[in-house]
Amino acid sequence: MDESFLTPTNDGLEAFKQAFRRHAAGVAVITSRDPEGKPVGFTATSLASLAAVPPLATFNMARIASAWPAMTVGNRVVIHMLGSRGQHQAERMSADNAHRFDAGYWHEGPHGLPVLNDVTARMIGTIIEVHPVHSNAVIVVQIESGELGAEDDALLYHERRYLKPEEFAAEI
Amino acid sequence: MDESFLTPTNDGLEAFKQAFRRHAAGVAVITSRDPEGKPVGFTATSLASLAAVPPLATFNMARIASAWPAMTVGNRVVIHMLGSRGQHQAERMSADNAHRFDAGYWHEGPHGLPVLNDVTARMIGTIIEVHPVHSNAVIVVQIESGELGAEDDALLYHERRYLKPEEFAAEI
Repeated sequence: MDESFLTPTNDGLEAFKQAFRRHAAGVAVITSRDPEGKPVGFTATSLASLAAVPPLATFNMARIASAWPAMTVGNRVVIHMLGSRGQHQAERMSADNAHRFDAGYWHEGPHGLPVLNDVTARMIGTIIEVHPVHSNAVIVVQIESGELGAEDDALLYHERRYLKPEEFAAEI
Repeated sequence: MDESFLTPTNDGLEAFKQAFRRHAAGVAVITSRDPEGKPVGFTATSLASLAAVPPLATFNMARIASAWPAMTVGNRVVIHMLGSRGQHQAERMSADNAHRFDAGYWHEGPHGLPVLNDVTARMIGTIIEVHPVHSNAVIVVQIESGELGAEDDALLYHERRYLKPEEFAAEI
């Protein structure tokens, strides 16, 4: 009845790697200000909606990330949705953190928050929960305001490449 | 410097809806057994990796969902990654929960768990944390084993449609 499954494994890490390789994700960038006022940010493929009423979103991150000191309950973050025009932002915000806020790619927005150019939407919200799990953490944000940019293909990350969504061919 | 943002809003719900409409997500199905042994499951677009060591994944869900009683620390779940062949599973597992486990689309797998046919990968793991937030919850799962299915286009959900990833045209 089922197709044959070729590579069963009892190695959790291997199972995790194999499975997430098959999973495509939308690409977002989270930014904030750390306690010293420095802009911090990173590319996230873990952004998810949690609830609509109240509007809540979650993302996951490593606690060694340069943005971790900003992830405190009550602090504000900007969640940027990326489209194809924003691929350079995804690349910059996942590379050397000394160059993530080089001039020309962002500006100061509401509450002094760093907001990125060339994105399809931005949401501003307040961190309401932080759940550390081993070396990582789940962050819960309540969305308060936002802005919608020009339309664009949504940016995807899959098998270590940036892609866009496409309709299935009619025969499928 | 920045393109003009056309629709700023201070309505959190409107900002949330506008932004997530621009975000594409991979599609997964979570299944388990509830305390009475009944198979339960639902389609999730919130699946995200949290850590590799140990291998951890998260998903979000409503606490009114039929699968909620199964979401207890120590209980096992199956996380299925869906490809284009699995679109019918995504549709069934987000429709009337009386028909989610009609015969022919699933079978009993390890630990008696309900496993779905026609998926690209399955991971089996144990729930290690459950964080209720308002009417919803964040679930953290430690992955223990898995199986890889036949290759397929990853299944996406974007703007209320099922799509697949595609490369950008060369000129972009």
